[in-house]
Amino acid sequence: MKWYEIEGEMGGIVVSTRVRLARNLSDYPFPAKLSSKDENEILEKVSSFLTDGGDDGEAYTLTDLSTTDAVTAGALVEKHIISPRMASKRGNRGVVLSDDESVSIMINEEDHLRIQVLGSGFCLDECLEKANRVDDMLDGEFTYAWSERLGYLTRCPSNLGTGLRASVMLHLPAHTESGEISMLMSSLGRLGFTVRGIYGEGTAAIGSYYQISNQFTFGSDEQDTIDRLKKVVKSTVEHEQELRDRYRDRHKNAAEDKAWRAYGLLKYARKLSSAEATSLLGDVRRGVVAGDLEDVSIPLLNALLWQVQPNQVKVISGDYHMDSEERDIARAEMVRESF
Amino acid sequence: MKWYEIEGEMGGIVVSTRVRLARNLSDYPFPAKLSSKDENEILEKVSSFLTDGGDDGEAYTLTDLSTTDAVTAGALVEKHIISPRMASKRGNRGVVLSDDESVSIMINEEDHLRIQVLGSGFCLDECLEKANRVDDMLDGEFTYAWSERLGYLTRCPSNLGTGLRASVMLHLPAHTESGEISMLMSSLGRLGFTVRGIYGEGTAAIGSYYQISNQFTFGSDEQDTIDRLKKVVKSTVEHEQELRDRYRDRHKNAAEDKAWRAYGLLKYARKLSSAEATSLLGDVRRGVVAGDLEDVSIPLLNALLWQVQPNQVKVISGDYHMDSEERDIARAEMVRESF
Repeated sequence: MKWYEIEGEMGGIVVSTRVRLARNLSDYPFPAKLSSKDENEILEKVSSFLTDGGDDGEAYTLTDLSTTDAVTAGALVEKHIISPRMASKRGNRGVVLSDDESVSIMINEEDHLRIQVLGSGFCLDECLEKANRVDDMLDGEFTYAWSERLGYLTRCPSNLGTGLRASVMLHLPAHTESGEISMLMSSLGRLGFTVRGIYGEGTAAIGSYYQISNQFTFGSDEQDTIDRLKKVVKSTVEHEQELRDRYRDRHKNAAEDKAWRAYGLLKYARKLSSAEATSLLGDVRRGVVAGDLEDVSIPLLNALLWQVQPNQVKVISGDYHMDSEERDIARAEMVRESF
Repeated sequence: MKWYEIEGEMGGIVVSTRVRLARNLSDYPFPAKLSSKDENEILEKVSSFLTDGGDDGEAYTLTDLSTTDAVTAGALVEKHIISPRMASKRGNRGVVLSDDESVSIMINEEDHLRIQVLGSGFCLDECLEKANRVDDMLDGEFTYAWSERLGYLTRCPSNLGTGLRASVMLHLPAHTESGEISMLMSSLGRLGFTVRGIYGEGTAAIGSYYQISNQFTFGSDEQDTIDRLKKVVKSTVEHEQELRDRYRDRHKNAAEDKAWRAYGLLKYARKLSSAEATSLLGDVRRGVVAGDLEDVSIPLLNALLWQVQPNQVKVISGDYHMDSEERDIARAEMVRESF
């Protein structure tokens, strides 16, 4: 079972949680100055250690991104397993992935190592704990670049210190509709958090999916960062629910109608763009949270949210050379069969 | 079983056929000069003759429109059983309707009598024959105002002669989309036929339903009028099919998608305006004709086309005081249950 096939805490509004630790090995130059031979050595050593079964009980598999086609790499980006930079850069690099896809270790991204943990719903503590376990395991085998004064040393100063980036993906349609999303962005910005649309750009995010993450890695420890993010997410979720309730009090029929129409279109359309599917899945998700659509599960919506993205559709269909219309048809077929 | 619950000839594109004969009784002044007493006498005599069982085997019922509420009358207009004028005018007037709703005789409309026959699909001959039977039956009992030189005398000169208005209701989405509907209107206009949108106005007819009817009643006999209309309708249907095939050759997926999306919305929406429902029923109809939607029947679409109209919704729900939103909700519920 994949991590997203589970319904997590606050799973209606909180899609997923991610914790990422940036680490570098002290025995090698930083990635920008790394020779191809060194790159290869890091990739080889770290991935072997993990796939030969570190000691955390997970089964890991290496995907060597220097020999991976663009569609497969793109699909990993869409599932948030690797960064877009990781897919497009050159050189010896790879990602080690646990069976349930919750733990991924990118090797030779911007830093030597990026340990990432994904979880369903709102689960910052669990993700941090899991990331720390992997971190400790690697720390036992390799030597990290670390300084007493600066903490973990990273290529970009913005990651110095904890090297921790924690982010929570939220579904915020009522913030979007009411226009409060801009206020949220600016007020959380002042508190040291970044809010950005996951699909599309800025305030016009497709499907109203947003990610809230910490901006700073220096000057506070991991737990403090996580605790502050937890507070901010909780209050955002509460306010989103208030806004939804307020709208529903006045427009119950319109709200139900929107959710059911989205369901009808997903169930019967013969062509679906990724933008439309993403948006309709959001409408259905809101209806599920409101109790309108009882037969649709949040894990199904989570899975589809990745699966409707362009590269995923190609991978799932097994046809990497589809044009855009063929993809829209294959996507509609896949969605239809899921409902 | 109602007349529209049968699938008629060319039933996919031809929704229905109507034949109407305008007649006046020679023993009474023309309607404009009719006293209330005379109105009442005509209503009484003609309706009694029909409801007591003329001799055509049909069972007739009288609806006295002077005592009928506006919603019920509006619903009869929406089903094309009475004219809008008949619903809104004052005075003693009524409509006598056969059980299957195919034969209606309006009494004291613009003329003393308007004999109307409706049929499913393309059936001009059958409708004319049926209208003639009713006409002969009434002619045996009453004396028509008729002149050797002018034929049947009618209040408005535009009905003089045969008193026949034959019309065919067509679904012409491909004419509408391609813009050819304007050409059709002007070319048929030159041939003595009128083309008009049934719902909405002119070339922007909601759902692309149009009625083609003869303009002239003087100078040619009934059969000639019918034969010429038949030719015109046949060629219009053929051209509509050509336009659809041509579009489908290039845009098969988009065509299928449109039909199935309409189906999904009709099946799941919680609010439907009459305009949207009319339009979506048209999209589904086209999909049924193309063979995309096999489980939907043309008679169901015919029945729904009346049932989604505003007054019908009120009558079917039994609530005559619904506001527009309540009606949209009731309409969506009714449509949902039909699919």
